[in-house]
Parts: sequence; structure tokens; C-alpha cells
Amino acid sequence: MEPAPSAAPETSGASAPRRRGRPSQPVLSRGKITTAALAIIGRAGYEGLTMAALARELKTAPSALYNHVASKDEVLNWVQDDVNDTIDTSAFGRDPWDVALIRWAYSYREAFANHSPLIPVIAVLPITGAPHTLEMYERVAEGLRAGGWPEDLVIDAIVAVESFILGSAMDVSAPEWIFDVGERRDLAPTFADAVGARRGRGRAAADDAFALGLHALVAGLRGTLASTLATRR
Amino acid sequence: MEPAPSAAPETSGASAPRRRGRPSQPVLSRGKITTAALAIIGRAGYEGLTMAALARELKTAPSALYNHVASKDEVLNWVQDDVNDTIDTSAFGRDPWDVALIRWAYSYREAFANHSPLIPVIAVLPITGAPHTLEMYERVAEGLRAGGWPEDLVIDAIVAVESFILGSAMDVSAPEWIFDVGERRDLAPTFADAVGARRGRGRAAADDAFALGLHALVAGLRGTLASTLATRR
Repeated sequence: MEPAPSAAPETSGASAPRRRGRPSQPVLSRGKITTAALAIIGRAGYEGLTMAALARELKTAPSALYNHVASKDEVLNWVQDDVNDTIDTSAFGRDPWDVALIRWAYSYREAFANHSPLIPVIAVLPITGAPHTLEMYERVAEGLRAGGWPEDLVIDAIVAVESFILGSAMDVSAPEWIFDVGERRDLAPTFADAVGARRGRGRAAADDAFALGLHALVAGLRGTLASTLATRR
Repeated sequence: MEPAPSAAPETSGASAPRRRGRPSQPVLSRGKITTAALAIIGRAGYEGLTMAALARELKTAPSALYNHVASKDEVLNWVQDDVNDTIDTSAFGRDPWDVALIRWAYSYREAFANHSPLIPVIAVLPITGAPHTLEMYERVAEGLRAGGWPEDLVIDAIVAVESFILGSAMDVSAPEWIFDVGERRDLAPTFADAVGARRGRGRAAADDAFALGLHALVAGLRGTLASTLATRR
């Protein structure tokens, strides 16, 4: 299967097309490698993404692939950057910071709900070399600063909201019966009743919990900002 | 290496010691299997935990192991249950729900900060057959109900806080340089300045973000509860 033409910008400097009389071996680039990785992930999941599989997908030798990308972690960094590029940051600079944060959070969770195996990876993956990711964080940081957030609290606020988003994106993949108490209702009768009284099920239940938590978190952050500004004045 | 004697209670009914003249083959039980799994995880990480490795650790044949546990997922469910048993729920029923929730969240994050590879697993792992987990959720549900939370919102509130905790527990493992903009400061100058102004580094930075987010989330939930009760009155 030929990799689809890349829609991502070429951020590697070493991707000028060259012809060497071997048209079956595509010139590798960050965009082509990322597109091939996403194709494998879409077909076989993140478990199927290996450097060997990536080389096969690109119809090249692993050694040639390693000339263009150092490791699977670097491939995942590129994939992360492609996913992050789909996240909507347009409300920052237009709407108040709290409204913009909610819109960003919904879009961020949606983007990673379909890439849940990437979540534990990106939670600890440095963003160096991920230009769309940097641009996303810049928009959020600008929005918080414009909304009055002190510079030294901006990253804590972003990390706090992001932790909630990533935890919630994992919850989207949880099976409907995750809170089934099974035969041990005796151990958790109050909990079991609450599970029974829950309004939504499956994806709808995850959506309800996310909405409840996100609005509470952002309301709480409004209070944190107000009291911080009052204290520091 | 001999597995250490199990400190976990025997929750399987099939664990009465028997002697069959083959002392090198220990009688398998849920407690012994869980202890052996935790020993492997402590030594080789979650990647090292396979059913074959578990059988070797227990000095038994994989076929004998499969007589006592159905799958690696069931082993992980037992490990999850052991980790959850270390989480402090003692403040529920003693302190107000919001104070108790904060204490629970700190303890929960601490327990899983050392088991971060377990986080994406347990986020989607049903709790059926995990008695300590059920007992934990029962304490939390009781505390929320006693604090005035309507039954149909209890699970959403728990899931929201848990999503934040699990996302934050992943962040504990993040390297210090995760937000290093590298050579592309031009793409994110406001963000880079905020990273530079951040008070803590490494684990301290993760702790600051967690504290900021947790207190904001719980303050927001107080507001959610008050407005819900006002609306439904």
C-alpha cells in the first residue's frame, strides 16, 4: 500500500526530493513517515506500530528508515504533533480565558479519545521538535496571560487542565460495565446504587462526568485566579 | 528467587495449604500470584510481566498457572486491587466530603505514581472481582452521599476526580525537560517564558500543578453541589 501524500508540513530540513532511478523507494520525510505511522495505527493499533512495520509500510529498509528518524519515540512525537494540530485553539484571543479553556479541553479530549494508547506516551514525551504542539501551547499560554494569569502559574494551570483532559480521554475507552460490582454488592451497596442511578451509559456517561468535572475545574480556577490576584496586589 | 510470603489477604476460596510431596511447587492462590506479579513488576517493570514470567516466578508450569487465573488482565485486576488497598479513605465519614476527597486524591495519586504503566490499564479495567477496590469506592460514595450529593451525580463526581488523579499520576513520571521548547522558541515565546517562570522543577513542579488543580476542582465541585441542590429544591 502506497502511503498517502502527506498533508503535514515538512519540518525536517533533509527532505528535498531526489531521484536516484528507484521510484519504488519513496524519498522519506517527516510527513511521509508520520502518515505511514498513522496508517499502521489506524489498521493495527499502537501495538502494531514497530519500526519494522513502519519500514515495510514505507517500502524501505529499516536501516534507511533510521537515517530519517532516530527511534519509535521520535515517530510517536511526530504522531502526537499531528494529533495536536487537530485541536481547536481558536477561542483563545477571542473569548475570555475560561470559555476558551473549555472549548480547548473538549477538542483536546476528542482528539485523544481516538488515540488513547498514545496518552500514557505523550504524558511523559518531551515536546521538543513538535512545532504544532508548541503552537498549541503558545495559544493557551497567551490566552491565560491575557486573562490575567501570573506568568509563574500558567504552566501549573495548563498541566492541571491537561491532566484532567488526558485522564478523561482514557475514560472514553472504558467499557460500560467498568463499575459493575458483580456478585459483591454486599461490599459496596451505596456505590452500586449510585452506579444504577447514573444518568448516562457508556460514552454518554463519560461525557457527563467530563462535563461535570471540566466546568467545576474551570470555575475553581476562576476562584484561584481571583484570590491569587487579590493576595499579590 | 522464592516469592515472598503474601501480605495480601487470601480472597480466593481455594487456598487451603496442601502437601503433595512436591514442596518445590507452591500451592497457587490469588495472594501468591499477586505477590509474584508485584515482584516481577518491581524488578522488570510492567513490560516484564508476562504469564510465562509469572509461571517461572512461581516455579510452576504455565498450564498450572492458568488453572488459577484466566488471563494477564485478571492478574492486573488483582494487582490493581492490591494497590487500591493502600489508598487512604479514612477521612470519609470523619471529615467533610470536600476535605476527605482531597485527602483521598493525594493518597490515590501517590499509590499510582509508582505504578504509572498500570494507569491506562486500570482506566478501562472493570472492577468486578476486586474487593478492596469496591470497598474504596463504597467509602467515597458514602462520603459524597453523606455530604449531600444526589445519588445520580455520585459516579460522575468520582469519575471526574479520578480522571484528574490518574492524569496527574502519569505527569509525575514526566521528565523535567518535557516542556523544553528546544530550538523553536520563536514558535512559543509566551509559553517558553512561563516554563522559565515556573516555581518548581521535576516532581516539585508536578506536585504544584496537582495541588493547584485539585483544590480548584474540589472548590468547583462545592459550587456544583450548591447550585444543583438549589435548582432541585
